Amino acid sequence: MNSLSTTTRKSMMLFSGRGYPELAEEVAKELQVEVTPQSIWDFANGEIFVRPERSVRGTDAFVIQSCTVPINTWVMETLIMIDALKRASAKRITVVLPFYPYARQDKKHRGREPISARLIADLLKTAGAHRLMTVDLHTDQVQGFFDGPVDHLFAQGLLTEYISDRYGAEELTVVSPDSGRVRTAERWANRLGGVPIAFIHKTRDPLKPNQVVANRVVGEVDGRTCIVVDDMIDTGGTIAKAVIQVLEAGAKKVIVAATHGVLSDPAAERLSTCGAAEVVLTNTLPIPPAHTFDQLTVLSIAPLIAKAIHEVFEDGSVTSLFEGH
Amino acid sequence: MNSLSTTTRKSMMLFSGRGYPELAEEVAKELQVEVTPQSIWDFANGEIFVRPERSVRGTDAFVIQSCTVPINTWVMETLIMIDALKRASAKRITVVLPFYPYARQDKKHRGREPISARLIADLLKTAGAHRLMTVDLHTDQVQGFFDGPVDHLFAQGLLTEYISDRYGAEELTVVSPDSGRVRTAERWANRLGGVPIAFIHKTRDPLKPNQVVANRVVGEVDGRTCIVVDDMIDTGGTIAKAVIQVLEAGAKKVIVAATHGVLSDPAAERLSTCGAAEVVLTNTLPIPPAHTFDQLTVLSIAPLIAKAIHEVFEDGSVTSLFEGH
Amino acid sequence: MNSLSTTTRKSMMLFSGRGYPELAEEVAKELQVEVTPQSIWDFANGEIFVRPERSVRGTDAFVIQSCTVPINTWVMETLIMIDALKRASAKRITVVLPFYPYARQDKKHRGREPISARLIADLLKTAGAHRLMTVDLHTDQVQGFFDGPVDHLFAQGLLTEYISDRYGAEELTVVSPDSGRVRTAERWANRLGGVPIAFIHKTRDPLKPNQVVANRVVGEVDGRTCIVVDDMIDTGGTIAKAVIQVLEAGAKKVIVAATHGVLSDPAAERLSTCGAAEVVLTNTLPIPPAHTFDQLTVLSIAPLIAKAIHEVFEDGSVTSLFEGH
Amino acid sequence: MNSLSTTTRKSMMLFSGRGYPELAEEVAKELQVEVTPQSIWDFANGEIFVRPERSVRGTDAFVIQSCTVPINTWVMETLIMIDALKRASAKRITVVLPFYPYARQDKKHRGREPISARLIADLLKTAGAHRLMTVDLHTDQVQGFFDGPVDHLFAQGLLTEYISDRYGAEELTVVSPDSGRVRTAERWANRLGGVPIAFIHKTRDPLKPNQVVANRVVGEVDGRTCIVVDDMIDTGGTIAKAVIQVLEAGAKKVIVAATHGVLSDPAAERLSTCGAAEVVLTNTLPIPPAHTFDQLTVLSIAPLIAKAIHEVFEDGSVTSLFEGH
Amino acid sequence: MNSLSTTTRKSMMLFSGRGYPELAEEVAKELQVEVTPQSIWDFANGEIFVRPERSVRGTDAFVIQSCTVPINTWVMETLIMIDALKRASAKRITVVLPFYPYARQDKKHRGREPISARLIADLLKTAGAHRLMTVDLHTDQVQGFFDGPVDHLFAQGLLTEYISDRYGAEELTVVSPDSGRVRTAERWANRLGGVPIAFIHKTRDPLKPNQVVANRVVGEVDGRTCIVVDDMIDTGGTIAKAVIQVLEAGAKKVIVAATHGVLSDPAAERLSTCGAAEVVLTNTLPIPPAHTFDQLTVLSIAPLIAKAIHEVFEDGSVTSLFEGH
Amino acid sequence: MNSLSTTTRKSMMLFSGRGYPELAEEVAKELQVEVTPQSIWDFANGEIFVRPERSVRGTDAFVIQSCTVPINTWVMETLIMIDALKRASAKRITVVLPFYPYARQDKKHRGREPISARLIADLLKTAGAHRLMTVDLHTDQVQGFFDGPVDHLFAQGLLTEYISDRYGAEELTVVSPDSGRVRTAERWANRLGGVPIAFIHKTRDPLKPNQVVANRVVGEVDGRTCIVVDDMIDTGGTIAKAVIQVLEAGAKKVIVAATHGVLSDPAAERLSTCGAAEVVLTNTLPIPPAHTFDQLTVLSIAPLIAKAIHEVFEDGSVTSLFEGH
Repeated sequence: MNSLSTTTRKSMMLFSGRGYPELAEEVAKELQVEVTPQSIWDFANGEIFVRPERSVRGTDAFVIQSCTVPINTWVMETLIMIDALKRASAKRITVVLPFYPYARQDKKHRGREPISARLIADLLKTAGAHRLMTVDLHTDQVQGFFDGPVDHLFAQGLLTEYISDRYGAEELTVVSPDSGRVRTAERWANRLGGVPIAFIHKTRDPLKPNQVVANRVVGEVDGRTCIVVDDMIDTGGTIAKAVIQVLEAGAKKVIVAATHGVLSDPAAERLSTCGAAEVVLTNTLPIPPAHTFDQLTVLSIAPLIAKAIHEVFEDGSVTSLFEGH
Repeated sequence: MNSLSTTTRKSMMLFSGRGYPELAEEVAKELQVEVTPQSIWDFANGEIFVRPERSVRGTDAFVIQSCTVPINTWVMETLIMIDALKRASAKRITVVLPFYPYARQDKKHRGREPISARLIADLLKTAGAHRLMTVDLHTDQVQGFFDGPVDHLFAQGLLTEYISDRYGAEELTVVSPDSGRVRTAERWANRLGGVPIAFIHKTRDPLKPNQVVANRVVGEVDGRTCIVVDDMIDTGGTIAKAVIQVLEAGAKKVIVAATHGVLSDPAAERLSTCGAAEVVLTNTLPIPPAHTFDQLTVLSIAPLIAKAIHEVFEDGSVTSLFEGH
Repeated sequence: MNSLSTTTRKSMMLFSGRGYPELAEEVAKELQVEVTPQSIWDFANGEIFVRPERSVRGTDAFVIQSCTVPINTWVMETLIMIDALKRASAKRITVVLPFYPYARQDKKHRGREPISARLIADLLKTAGAHRLMTVDLHTDQVQGFFDGPVDHLFAQGLLTEYISDRYGAEELTVVSPDSGRVRTAERWANRLGGVPIAFIHKTRDPLKPNQVVANRVVGEVDGRTCIVVDDMIDTGGTIAKAVIQVLEAGAKKVIVAATHGVLSDPAAERLSTCGAAEVVLTNTLPIPPAHTFDQLTVLSIAPLIAKAIHEVFEDGSVTSLFEGH
Repeated sequence: MNSLSTTTRKSMMLFSGRGYPELAEEVAKELQVEVTPQSIWDFANGEIFVRPERSVRGTDAFVIQSCTVPINTWVMETLIMIDALKRASAKRITVVLPFYPYARQDKKHRGREPISARLIADLLKTAGAHRLMTVDLHTDQVQGFFDGPVDHLFAQGLLTEYISDRYGAEELTVVSPDSGRVRTAERWANRLGGVPIAFIHKTRDPLKPNQVVANRVVGEVDGRTCIVVDDMIDTGGTIAKAVIQVLEAGAKKVIVAATHGVLSDPAAERLSTCGAAEVVLTNTLPIPPAHTFDQLTVLSIAPLIAKAIHEVFEDGSVTSLFEGH
Repeated sequence: MNSLSTTTRKSMMLFSGRGYPELAEEVAKELQVEVTPQSIWDFANGEIFVRPERSVRGTDAFVIQSCTVPINTWVMETLIMIDALKRASAKRITVVLPFYPYARQDKKHRGREPISARLIADLLKTAGAHRLMTVDLHTDQVQGFFDGPVDHLFAQGLLTEYISDRYGAEELTVVSPDSGRVRTAERWANRLGGVPIAFIHKTRDPLKPNQVVANRVVGEVDGRTCIVVDDMIDTGGTIAKAVIQVLEAGAKKVIVAATHGVLSDPAAERLSTCGAAEVVLTNTLPIPPAHTFDQLTVLSIAPLIAKAIHEVFEDGSVTSLFEGH
Repeated sequence: MNSLSTTTRKSMMLFSGRGYPELAEEVAKELQVEVTPQSIWDFANGEIFVRPERSVRGTDAFVIQSCTVPINTWVMETLIMIDALKRASAKRITVVLPFYPYARQDKKHRGREPISARLIADLLKTAGAHRLMTVDLHTDQVQGFFDGPVDHLFAQGLLTEYISDRYGAEELTVVSPDSGRVRTAERWANRLGGVPIAFIHKTRDPLKPNQVVANRVVGEVDGRTCIVVDDMIDTGGTIAKAVIQVLEAGAKKVIVAATHGVLSDPAAERLSTCGAAEVVLTNTLPIPPAHTFDQLTVLSIAPLIAKAIHEVFEDGSVTSLFEGH
């Protein structure tokens, strides 16, 4: 007898970073598993320590982290968690970043800039991630930065379903706040049944990408319910100006919809005072109580992530979740 | 005496693939060097053989290839040229692809697609390319696919200067033929002095990216000279339809401008009959006599590439060539 | 409950490039599976698009491609297919190239040449191939170019069995058309029961490896049935000259046998008119009707490939298929 | 004329992260260069943006960063700076981290821990660092974590020279606060002329490496001037307890000496009240005014770093700086 | 039917190098498997040939090698065995080196030294090892040299249990022969119930790491039973001098304990004549009859290795084997 | 002033392993440099220690090692030397192995064999070698195993010149002792002016590649001076039998010529008694006095290696050394 032989079983474990543990708990509940307990704390000088409290040998590990503020801390924590899992003999490591950090720095806007979104992909690979799952990348091309399979989930279905339910009976126009995302608006318009689109023609300071100067509305908005759509809302400047301009251009009502609620100050103030009737986001990032406001609606992304994790573990099809997309 | 010591010299050599040797010759003339002679031929079954006819040891090699039809042949030839230079001890290899092949397949439009633009970048790196120089990528993010320095050149200055000279006195509108390139139109509009922009709102079949269905013009074109801009013209369907629609929408005159003239059949026919007053391209790709037509103007990209190669060799600044861009 | 756990199943899928789909179909029939349907087409400028039409997540994928003319197109297609499978989360990718492209450029014949056979191996690895299966490499050392397991299949058994059946009763001599393949002839001679061997002493122009100048026969051929053996027949010049010389040297009858029928022009003409009584090939490459001729016999390699794929999938032994080899 | 040829020059540029720009300025002054100006700022959500304001093409770049609090931010900033330099065609990138982050996590103290010090080395390499320069690693083995040349500088000469000058006439004992650093104490003792050594025999909680329980002094300290030496002082707990115990064991006077003053709270309070006559540190990390105290002496590490950078740039010998060490 | 599908089984096979086949046999017996037969021999010029005699396709391979004299031969043999298994399609390769070769060269003691312990880790990885199992590394940091999971086993439990059984009733002191291993002595002291520790304060010639000059005993040894502990005993010089000095300092009895018995000449002579009452080792390395002596006791490491291999194969927990460590 | 700038110089240093230091000295003398002194010795258990005694920062290092018995020791020594040079910041490392170790194991002769020649190439690369220089590889394809430039030198010119001088007036036949090296014999024949060739038709036991059974001579040898040529002579069995058979077949005189004199026992005895009139070798490997014999002539390879190193250092052409080859 030369060898031992046995049937193979596979198991799945969820791990959560400290960026937004509530989301991981919600995903775990959907999957009917528990988040695997870990020791995680900071040394006095901020160095992070991580150790899973259960054996992870041979497991199919999913590491969920929401890269909110302080973002560099959570990026480093993710890398360290992956390193610990790799060295503890996890069989496969899928890192689940509902909000991909540094996604906006996906190219050199001018010479000598870094391409930080590629750097993040390489760091994840180096630490030991085999696969990446993420939601609504700032640009789809970021998928190509990771040297391995990427499960790119779309929140559009979740958001448009909600918009359709509440505003489907009104005369809608989809508005891109930016000339760079008119294609996205077009996809929304198709999904909402072929409604018109418009965009804000503006100038952006190439040195400081999140400060923009809005100009004028191109397209038909007068007397209509306008859905201003974007992938993320950071300080809310662009979006709030877009709302104001669309209202000035005669819109009857303005709804804001986006996947990622970064909501850096003073986003909450801007969004709550700009005139938008409702602001619809998902919880890919945590929205602290101090940043909520009356018009805000938050849809949970957890069921979508849970379904995708289930498909990945069971060798099913993630693509099928978005058939018709 | 333990060691030999000597002052260091560096030298530069140009190598040309067979895709479009005339462009390499033009670049060489600008740089006042000669294209290094090579043996290149095909075996009977199409396998390519390459051998530089001069010693290349220690040289700073620039490999120029225009990836025109048959495109896969020229991609393979480029990889083989790089391999030969690497094994022959060239010190540094910069591959110069004025038109980056497979740039349109820069993301998974649907699940299970390849990201061929990333694949190309990895193949170039694997063969031995240290650096990449290219002109007007389909999306800027493709820069991030290559694991090394990329010199991304812009033909916009060359094209807008020509347009300004000829049509600057007219009332211009810049038109994007596609919702996905409105940002590019905005940059043209800024460069032309803040003129208005418009775009064609259309539907694209996700299964066959170069077959599109145009819808309607969004923005102000009536009575104006419209500049329809794009990065590349392949079969010319999108552009020709855009020209027709802009004319139908009341434009006084339409000019087409793009960097890359792929001009697959029936582009020449479509462009010459769509009503465009002039079609302005650069020669990043060869335009065979059979594909020219009366309205066509071709500007040479060779001086720009030559300047960039010179800066790279001399450790100057390529960024400075586009200052103000 | 910290984790989900389940028993593991594994599945196998076959994918075929467009080089020679009939061979893949034949292999699939042997394995009693279907070739997985894919969308594959060319963009107008020749760029290739590939997308599997089924979920491939977790599968053991076998990609079969015959690298016939236009060879660079099929090499690129293979790389793109692998990229798509990798990004779609196939578990393991075995690329099956019955004819390994660029195998003849397996060394620098002179300084500054590429080693394209190594380049091909590296490109396959970079694209994402974990394993390689191939038949009768031009030189066995090419196995070592691939950084991973290589299943090297031999068609010799198939060919010698056929020769034995038909000509075993005659007085045979095995002839190498080339001083570089006398060892191969020796292996054939052993397999055919210890018959004599001979070879053609010739001069080869180092600049153009497939143009040769035959000289004279070394070894005993007078009055015998000679089997001229080679790994591949490209333009047929070497082989046809060998047949003629062997006949001139007194051979009673000449049979040609080779694994790979590249058959570039004017191979069919040369082979059919050189005096050979029979030319025996396998179908590692497709032989188009226009290239067939009366003396040609084609043996199918599909059963051998199917058996090897089965062993690889079932963790059996490929070596055992050639025990006695 | 096939090629351009010219003599080669090389140039050096210094870049500073925001962790401790004053140290970089001090190094620059020693080298008689200027720190190259960069645009560095944070996006609203904490993502870091970096861009050198000068062409860096072909330069020998030295990136100086002090990894102080918030340490993960400065680690990420360092990686992004390296990425920007790599993509901007710097010829060689040496990252200078006077305090190596995560050096204490250099092994798995228990199963399933990360080895973060190795991870940091791999991240630096992935970002594009060719070389690493650092001062007094927590364990020398960390050098081996980086896949490339490491210039490991020692502050011991600087510190012992100062101690000799001030206390050389007294009867000295070198004390290790920890059983794991007795070897270091031995090296100090040799350097101070063969004085006796002692150490604190203690128990360390394996779960929380920087919380320790001191036990008793092993070795001769009664009536002597004791030098308590360590590589770094974080919260100061270990060191302060060691000082107290050595005083209780009869020491006449206690001096504390260490290279890295991490000085996390409540280090300043502990060190100033533990009874130490003097605490000698270097400025590998910034010591903010709020953390200084009367007994503190800070020696500048800048001249040593400047000398080492000079040797690296000029291909001199860094080893020679420590000859006799 | 697009695919073949089947349940997955996994099997384990043991392979042994020629360094110490008896240990592999002992491990195999514990696991109730057989060591897989291989052809291994040397070519006349010392080149090693290896070939497993069974199909290893898809197996979980464990390669056991004891790196004894001639150590470089066994290192190369290990690398070649791994290469053969990789190319023969073993699924996973765990190399089991009870004694990690070159572990002492884990840092640059002076400038321009190699870090051979890192080199060994990289060579193993390059050859194709996925995982590493080893016992009592010279320094724990060596774990971090390998880019993958390391199962680091500890013989301390085995050794201290034996010591406790035989000498637990006596008044013990644990002695480190060296200032660099006082921490290890402390761990032993804790394990033996909190007994005192001592060490030898000595000077080491930095040029020749295994020649040391002992000085004097620091700590309490008078009238006690002293356990001199180390990770390995090479020529035995350090240990023998330590024994002599501890006896001179008044120890009642001295026991020597170490994991790795390298026992290069004249270790056996030194250890048998130095006055030690017993010398306890494990059999991570073979101890040839010529090197045994009366006071020597050898404990078998095989049960520990077998348990660890079993846990690795079954995806159990290796950490749990040392819980309480 | 942002940067320091200076002209660049480059220097070359030679390093020698202990395999055959006399050859390195001879090369050094040709180049008019000195071999850089190093500390190299063995630890008691055979681990090798290496340290260059001069600063090597920025140097162009050439590491010369002759892989003679004990071959695995010299391979490991070479790897450790390279590691030391890499970590000491040598700019470029060219490893010069006049005899490439394990070159015969360049393919899997049967399933489950290693490809040790590829492994060696990968180990050299992993250790840090940028380039490889070697003489007369067993098969040319081994060049392709190294991922970087290979300078493959040929001793044929040296040997044929000697043969021509001494035997050019006689009627020569070049004889291959083996069906696998007839091509080599053909190249010799061309070089000697188009003389006839012959070979020994034999059977080789696939399990033990250096034990062969010679059969009969194919080709014209009767009454001629036969030059039996091979790349290496190991135990001399093949060659000696060939000499005997050629003499039996009527040869007037037999000369043996080969590049590498491995000369394992009983080669000297076999060669001296087989009837060969002269045996001509080069000194790529040392030939100890005990292995010399009357008929032996050794030509020095040092001038050729020195010329090639000079060309590499000066960015000249190595190819040009063999023009006409």
